[in-house]
Amino acid sequence: MAFQLLNPGETVRSHRHTPTQMRFIVKGRGAYTTSEGEQMLMEPGDLLVQSNWSWHGSANFAEEPVIWLDLQDRSLVNYLGAFMREFWPEDAVQPTTRPEEYHRRLSSGVRPLKSMNPNDLLPPFQYKWQDTLRALEDQLESQNDDPYDGVLFEYSNPFTGGHTVPTMSAQIQVLRPGQTTLLHRHTGATMHHVVEGQGSSTVGEEELRWQERDCFFIPALQWHCHQNGSKDKRAMLFSISDRPILDALGLYREEGK
Amino acid sequence: MAFQLLNPGETVRSHRHTPTQMRFIVKGRGAYTTSEGEQMLMEPGDLLVQSNWSWHGSANFAEEPVIWLDLQDRSLVNYLGAFMREFWPEDAVQPTTRPEEYHRRLSSGVRPLKSMNPNDLLPPFQYKWQDTLRALEDQLESQNDDPYDGVLFEYSNPFTGGHTVPTMSAQIQVLRPGQTTLLHRHTGATMHHVVEGQGSSTVGEEELRWQERDCFFIPALQWHCHQNGSKDKRAMLFSISDRPILDALGLYREEGK
Amino acid sequence: MAFQLLNPGETVRSHRHTPTQMRFIVKGRGAYTTSEGEQMLMEPGDLLVQSNWSWHGSANFAEEPVIWLDLQDRSLVNYLGAFMREFWPEDAVQPTTRPEEYHRRLSSGVRPLKSMNPNDLLPPFQYKWQDTLRALEDQLESQNDDPYDGVLFEYSNPFTGGHTVPTMSAQIQVLRPGQTTLLHRHTGATMHHVVEGQGSSTVGEEELRWQERDCFFIPALQWHCHQNGSKDKRAMLFSISDRPILDALGLYREEGK
Amino acid sequence: MAFQLLNPGETVRSHRHTPTQMRFIVKGRGAYTTSEGEQMLMEPGDLLVQSNWSWHGSANFAEEPVIWLDLQDRSLVNYLGAFMREFWPEDAVQPTTRPEEYHRRLSSGVRPLKSMNPNDLLPPFQYKWQDTLRALEDQLESQNDDPYDGVLFEYSNPFTGGHTVPTMSAQIQVLRPGQTTLLHRHTGATMHHVVEGQGSSTVGEEELRWQERDCFFIPALQWHCHQNGSKDKRAMLFSISDRPILDALGLYREEGK
Repeated sequence: MAFQLLNPGETVRSHRHTPTQMRFIVKGRGAYTTSEGEQMLMEPGDLLVQSNWSWHGSANFAEEPVIWLDLQDRSLVNYLGAFMREFWPEDAVQPTTRPEEYHRRLSSGVRPLKSMNPNDLLPPFQYKWQDTLRALEDQLESQNDDPYDGVLFEYSNPFTGGHTVPTMSAQIQVLRPGQTTLLHRHTGATMHHVVEGQGSSTVGEEELRWQERDCFFIPALQWHCHQNGSKDKRAMLFSISDRPILDALGLYREEGK
Repeated sequence: MAFQLLNPGETVRSHRHTPTQMRFIVKGRGAYTTSEGEQMLMEPGDLLVQSNWSWHGSANFAEEPVIWLDLQDRSLVNYLGAFMREFWPEDAVQPTTRPEEYHRRLSSGVRPLKSMNPNDLLPPFQYKWQDTLRALEDQLESQNDDPYDGVLFEYSNPFTGGHTVPTMSAQIQVLRPGQTTLLHRHTGATMHHVVEGQGSSTVGEEELRWQERDCFFIPALQWHCHQNGSKDKRAMLFSISDRPILDALGLYREEGK
Repeated sequence: MAFQLLNPGETVRSHRHTPTQMRFIVKGRGAYTTSEGEQMLMEPGDLLVQSNWSWHGSANFAEEPVIWLDLQDRSLVNYLGAFMREFWPEDAVQPTTRPEEYHRRLSSGVRPLKSMNPNDLLPPFQYKWQDTLRALEDQLESQNDDPYDGVLFEYSNPFTGGHTVPTMSAQIQVLRPGQTTLLHRHTGATMHHVVEGQGSSTVGEEELRWQERDCFFIPALQWHCHQNGSKDKRAMLFSISDRPILDALGLYREEGK
Repeated sequence: MAFQLLNPGETVRSHRHTPTQMRFIVKGRGAYTTSEGEQMLMEPGDLLVQSNWSWHGSANFAEEPVIWLDLQDRSLVNYLGAFMREFWPEDAVQPTTRPEEYHRRLSSGVRPLKSMNPNDLLPPFQYKWQDTLRALEDQLESQNDDPYDGVLFEYSNPFTGGHTVPTMSAQIQVLRPGQTTLLHRHTGATMHHVVEGQGSSTVGEEELRWQERDCFFIPALQWHCHQNGSKDKRAMLFSISDRPILDALGLYREEGK
C-alpha cells in the first residue's frame, strides 16, 4: 500500500503485469486510467481493479494533482516467481477503443456464453464511490454488527461473486458513533485507510490514533480492536486484506479474547 | 413458458415458493413487481428473476394490459417433491420497504462480508432491457459466431457469476443478416421467443417459420438449426434452457452433424 | 429401487447408458460385473457404481442365484430427456482387459495429471462390504448421533470426495440398541433396505415394521423417525437418497418437530 | 526439500503446525510416524502427508537409520504470517489410539455424512509405494506422453480428488527408454528426486546430470527439458511443485518453445 501522485499533464505509459493492482482514489478529480481500452475516470472514493494481465495506463487532464492508494499483490507474485510485465508498443496510454461503462455492463448483464470459464483472466472493473456509499447505506441499518469489526462490507467481484480478487479482499467498514469493538486476532494482514471520522485502534501493545486520510497496518496474528472517537458521527475505514489467500490454502484462523 | 396478462388495476397478492420464476416482459408499461420489498418496474424486454423462496407480488397501475412470459422450474420442483408455497399475511402486494435499485446495488457492489455463503438463497434481481441491449451491442462485433447458434449470450447471475439460476439459463441470441446455422443436437430443452426479426428453424422433421413475438420449443436431443429470414436485418431470440441442470448432473451431451 | 436376480449361467450383454446405476448385493456369491474392462466380483454387501456412460455387463458363474438391489437415476434422466444407451458390439460380456482392482487403484492413488477435469465422466468403482463394515466400525464409537438418523455415513465418491454420484447419495445408517430417533422431514426421498436387525419407522401416519432384507420408502416432505426394535443389537439400514440433486439446485429444506 | 535421517532408537516428539508436511521415504525400513493416533510404517517409496494442523511424531525401531525427503510449505506459511505450532503434552510420540489403515479406510470408503465440509482440516494420509507403483504401471501403457514431461502422474488427494494438498502437488514422472522431452517453461518451481534410472535435465543454461537418489531444482520460469540417459530402462522422477497455489491465484502460465 503506497500513495501515488499524478501531476497535471503527466501520463503513465500503458503496460500489464501478472500482479493484480487496485487503486483507491483519495484526492483530485480529472485523471483517468485506460483499462483494456476503456477510459475510466478516477474520482475520490472510486476503487479501480486492474486484474492480472490487463492493460492499463493513466493520464491527468485536471488542473490539480490526483492522489491514490496503490494496492498490489506484487510481493506475493515475486515470492512465487511469477512476475511478468509487458509494455504497450508505443510510449503512450493505450487509445480508447471501448465505450464508457463497457466493463460495468460486461460484469453485470448478459455475457457471451462461452467466454467465461473459471481459468479465464478477469476483465478490469471499477466501483464508483457514489454506488459504494449508496449500497453501504442501504445495508447499514439492517446489518448486525460484528463484535470485532463493526459493520464490515466487502467489494465483491462482479464476475465471480467471490472475494474482490483471488489474492486480496477490499473492504469498507463502519464504526457506529461511540462504538468500541472487541479484541481478536487472525491470520492474514490488513492495511487500513481512514475515509471518514477519527478514532483509535489497539494493535498488540500499541494504541494508534487515526483521523481522515491516515493509514495503518495490522500484522497477521496481532490482537487488535477499534474505537470510533466520536459520539455523534460514524467512522469509515477502507481496508485491504490477504485473507482470500489464507482461505484458498486452508490457513485462515481466528480467535476472540 | 406461458404468457401472462395483468389488466389495468389488477394485483397479484405477494407470495413465495420453492420454484424459481423469471419474467420476460413482452408488452405494456406501468406494471411492477414488488420483490422482497423493492418495487421493480416492468418494461418490455426486462427480465425479472424471483429466486427460490423470495417474496413477490404485482400490480398494474397503467392504462393498458401488461403481458409477460412466465418462466418457471415448477415442473422439476414438483417432480422432486420439493414444492412449497407461502402467502403474504395480507391479501395484497407486500409494501415497498426498500429504495429503488436496492437489489441492483446489492448485486454489483459492496456486500456484507458474512452474508453470502454458497448455500444462501439468492436475492431477486432484474436486467433492464436497455442495459441488456447495450451490453449485447458492445460485444456483438468482437464475438466469433458459434456455428450452431450465431452469437449467443447468457444473462449471467450477478451474485455468482454463473448460470442465470441453478435450474435455468436465460439467453439472448443474435442471428446476423442472412445467417444460417449448422444442424446440431444436445440434451437439454430450449424455449425460444422472437424479440426482433423473422426467420425459420428446422427442428427434427419440422420447418418452423417465426416472426416477432412468436414462441417455439426445441425438445431435448432433436436436431435443429436456425435461419435469419432477412438479408438486411438481424434477428434476436430470447430463450430459456434447462442446461444448468444437465451440467450439474454430468448429463450434458452435444453433437454436430 | 428394484431387486434383480441373475441365475447360474446367465449373462447380461455389456452396454452403457446415461443413467447412473448402483448395485447393492443382497445374496449369493460368484457373479461378477465387468466394468470398463475390469471384472468386479459381487459379494453380499458390496456396492458397485456404474457411472454415467461406463460399460458394464454381468455373468453368474456360481451354483446359486445372485440377487441385488438395482438403484438408478433413470427416471430423472428420462424426465430431462437425456436418456441414451449403446450395446457392446458382440452379444456378450465385454472381455476382461484390465487387472483386478484397477479402478480401486485409480481412485485412491496416483493419477495421470491431465486426465481428471471436472466435466470428465467418472470411472466405475466399487465398495467391498468388508471395507465398508470396517470403516463404519472405526467411526462408530467416536461419532455423535444425529438426533433424526442415529449414526449416518455416506459412501463418498473416491474421485471427487463428494456425494456418491451427482444424482444419488448412498448411505449406511446405524441405530444403536434401543435407539429411537426424533421426527423430522425434508425435501428429497429416501429408499431404505434393512441390512441387519429389526425395528420400525414412522412415516406420516403409518407405522412400518421391518426386519432384515426388507425395503421401505420415505417420500419427500413426510414426517418420519426410526426405532431399533432390539435392546441388545444394533440395526443397520442401507439407503439411497436424491439429496445431491436438491443440494445442487438449492432446494434442500429440513425441519425438525 | 531436505533429507532427514532418524537413527535407530531415536524419536521425534509429537507436534502439529500450520505448515503441511510430506515425507517421501528414501531408505531404511522400520521407522514409523504416528499421525493423529495411527501408526504409519514408513517404507522406501511411501509418501506420508501430514496435513495442516494434524498431530505427528516419529520413532525408529529398526536396526538401521531411516532417511526421507522432508517436503513442506513452511516458507510460504511464514511469508503469510500464518505459522503456528503446538507440542504434544508429553515429551513423547502420541500413543497409538487408532487401528492400522484407519485413515486409508476413512479416505476411500464410507464417511460420517456431516463430517466433511470444504473448510475442514484434512486428515493425514499416506500412499504406499507398492500401490503407487502398481497404479502407475496400470496406466503407463495407455497414457499419451506429454511432450514436455513424458508420462506425468499426480498423487491425488483422496478426500477431495484434487491436488495432493492445497499448496503442493506431489508427482511421479516416467521417462521412457531413450526419451527426450521438449523445452518449456512455466510459473511454479519444482523439486525433483530421482527414484530410478539416470539421465540429464537442461535447466536454463545448465546441463544437470542425475542418477538414482539425486535431487535437483527447477526454478519458476526457467526453460527446461529432460532426457532419459538409458536406451533400455525407464527413468522415474518424484517431484513436488507449488502449482496448486499458482492455479488458485490465477497465476499459472506455461509456454513451449
